[in-house]
Amino acid sequence: LTSGMYVHVRQMLHSLPSFDVALLLESSTPSARPVLWQLIDPDQHGDILEELSEDIKDSIIQEMDPEHVASAIEGMDSDDLAYVLGSLPESVYQQVLSSMSEQDKHRVEQALSYDEESAGAMMNTDVITLRPDVSVDVVLRYLRLRGELPQRTDMLYVVDGHDKLLGEVSLGDLITCQPDTMIREIHESEVAPLKAEQHDSEVAQHFERYELISAPVVDANGCLLGRITVDDVVDIIREDAEHSMMSMAGLEDEEDTFAPAAKSTQRRSIWLGLNVGAALLAASVSNMFEDILSQLATIAILMTIVPSMGGVAGNQTLTLVIRGIALGHVGDSNARWLLGKEALVGVFNGLIWATILASVVTVWKGDWHIGVVIAVSMFVNMLMAALAGVLVPLTLKKFKIDPALAGSMMVTTFTDIIGLFTFLGTATLMLS
Amino acid sequence: LTSGMYVHVRQMLHSLPSFDVALLLESSTPSARPVLWQLIDPDQHGDILEELSEDIKDSIIQEMDPEHVASAIEGMDSDDLAYVLGSLPESVYQQVLSSMSEQDKHRVEQALSYDEESAGAMMNTDVITLRPDVSVDVVLRYLRLRGELPQRTDMLYVVDGHDKLLGEVSLGDLITCQPDTMIREIHESEVAPLKAEQHDSEVAQHFERYELISAPVVDANGCLLGRITVDDVVDIIREDAEHSMMSMAGLEDEEDTFAPAAKSTQRRSIWLGLNVGAALLAASVSNMFEDILSQLATIAILMTIVPSMGGVAGNQTLTLVIRGIALGHVGDSNARWLLGKEALVGVFNGLIWATILASVVTVWKGDWHIGVVIAVSMFVNMLMAALAGVLVPLTLKKFKIDPALAGSMMVTTFTDIIGLFTFLGTATLMLS
Repeated sequence: LTSGMYVHVRQMLHSLPSFDVALLLESSTPSARPVLWQLIDPDQHGDILEELSEDIKDSIIQEMDPEHVASAIEGMDSDDLAYVLGSLPESVYQQVLSSMSEQDKHRVEQALSYDEESAGAMMNTDVITLRPDVSVDVVLRYLRLRGELPQRTDMLYVVDGHDKLLGEVSLGDLITCQPDTMIREIHESEVAPLKAEQHDSEVAQHFERYELISAPVVDANGCLLGRITVDDVVDIIREDAEHSMMSMAGLEDEEDTFAPAAKSTQRRSIWLGLNVGAALLAASVSNMFEDILSQLATIAILMTIVPSMGGVAGNQTLTLVIRGIALGHVGDSNARWLLGKEALVGVFNGLIWATILASVVTVWKGDWHIGVVIAVSMFVNMLMAALAGVLVPLTLKKFKIDPALAGSMMVTTFTDIIGLFTFLGTATLMLS
Repeated sequence: LTSGMYVHVRQMLHSLPSFDVALLLESSTPSARPVLWQLIDPDQHGDILEELSEDIKDSIIQEMDPEHVASAIEGMDSDDLAYVLGSLPESVYQQVLSSMSEQDKHRVEQALSYDEESAGAMMNTDVITLRPDVSVDVVLRYLRLRGELPQRTDMLYVVDGHDKLLGEVSLGDLITCQPDTMIREIHESEVAPLKAEQHDSEVAQHFERYELISAPVVDANGCLLGRITVDDVVDIIREDAEHSMMSMAGLEDEEDTFAPAAKSTQRRSIWLGLNVGAALLAASVSNMFEDILSQLATIAILMTIVPSMGGVAGNQTLTLVIRGIALGHVGDSNARWLLGKEALVGVFNGLIWATILASVVTVWKGDWHIGVVIAVSMFVNMLMAALAGVLVPLTLKKFKIDPALAGSMMVTTFTDIIGLFTFLGTATLMLS
């Protein structure tokens, strides 16, 4: 890129679909991104902005001048429009707004009135509506006059004189039924519309439940506001599923892999700071057993094994429960059964690894007493790890804290402390 | 359920959409599932089977008799059909096949000829094809005669006399253009079709890239075989995104949260067994420093802090890189930049936490020598953790090993060993 082959790169960028250009920007270093952005066809700017993740979108928009932003977002879907404008500083926002057409201004103001993670912010307002008392033939002639349909239109919505949603008619039905049929005879009236204030993860579940391509959005009175299409839902589903993994490592979903080092250090320091607390807590547990540690170096050598096994077992259970909660499989009704099952897994795991490690350690250190110490503490810690793996996420959920965010550190801290306490405690009782 | 209100439950189950019944089955204990299954309307069995995750689907199919299986899968999409039949024992499979219609038999055999995770196994064969040399009016009259279109049809495919795919026409275009237009004038010929042997994660990326509702699947000669619809792709996207999280804890994607304890214990034991090896390796590192440990109990008390911090920092970097690889953001071209950036984050983190922990420990233990020991080892381990977080997943990927599966244990083992080695080594040099 630095070798001056700008013309060549520019041509290449113009011929790529916006998804690929966005991928290229996401994969680039922060310093290369503005250069690439300059080389992209300004007509494509809007489409590409839609594809980018929030962190990167924000940093690019901050560099653009207001008129440029206004022209880039022209023709953008109203959901993306709202996002872009919502992230602008107030002064730039006003400038952009004043350079927009009246119609666009209205669309933006409406979209911005909804919560960022609601169905209202996801929907598009370009919907074709029909009245129930017209014939299919009339509709077909109207559509032919109107020309191109909005992207990903699979349904036309039937509304009354007050825009109240009565039902929907698929394009397929319009095509296959007799031209003199009235819309009221063929419209599907058992439509479960989305409410504008529903959370986006509910929207995603609604789409998965009914295997939809698009769904109508209504206000509190059942009046049609717009529609959501499956391509936006796919993004939500991916983000929701990624959210758990990123949170478990204390990272933000939208974290830019190529963010500058200073920014990354700052973001990750909260999590590391919490872990300092957890590690010092574990050290203070060991501190309680200074006597046995000063008597027997072997105990110090072996004391990391039990916490380590407990951490792995606890996090296995935790991961399963977090996914179960996210998918809606785990709730109050089956929590007790799950606790019993995982406790049993803990008992089995405890017996198996207590036996194996006791044998290994007895042979290694030539002293069966140490084998007994590790067996006892391993069994207790595996059982406690299983219980913590179920109870910690369920309790966090009760207090409306995201189990994926806080769960893994809490479980690990718990198994570290229990592991050290039982191992060093049993060692003190048996060996000192 | 055990109180005998079967009639009531049966009625309730009949009125729920199959997605919700499947959710109920997934949330039930293994012993309740067969009872629920008996209460479900047999006509719904096929639809519900399609919604279930593999583990549960398998266990239910094993309990059904062959004729029942045959009737349940009647009318199932060919992709699900192939999956269900593929998981039957050979004798039952033959029985089911013999009770099917010739047409279904053909569909099954074709679908089974593709790899389970390929586009061929995902596709449906119910496609409407057109010739380029007919007018829109003729097509509309043909569709009206034919009646209902296959579910989620948004495109009709244009083929020549040898079924070679020439292009596609959307229902919207059919409706909005003049009736005397020829199909060849309106068909979109720049279609990038999927190949039957493409992997399902490539299919998902193709759908996300072009924001599709359906896509045609062709064979090696470009002949149309079927089409894939977005509802099946949504499942793949969710599974792909969940895969990383589950693998990082050593769990299988399709692991049933409510599997019996014995089965769960067995599945998780491989991962715990690997961790035994890792924990013993760490203990053997401590064993090398028996001298200092027997001299100073304080060293034993503090020796878990540095490995713990390194583990957290290493796993943060690892998670980010694994997600970057999965999304296609991280590759050979930017790996070196990323390594440099994460190394810098490691240096920053090392400096920050070395300073903080050295102060805490100096105050706590009243000896600045120990503070220096922890500062030096913390700095080294944080830097090594960052390097391992980038290099381990990239190396695993080179060797075609899933970084999510092996990465987290490898990074943690590495940071444990380096942490113990530097801490105990520095302590030996400075304090003994």
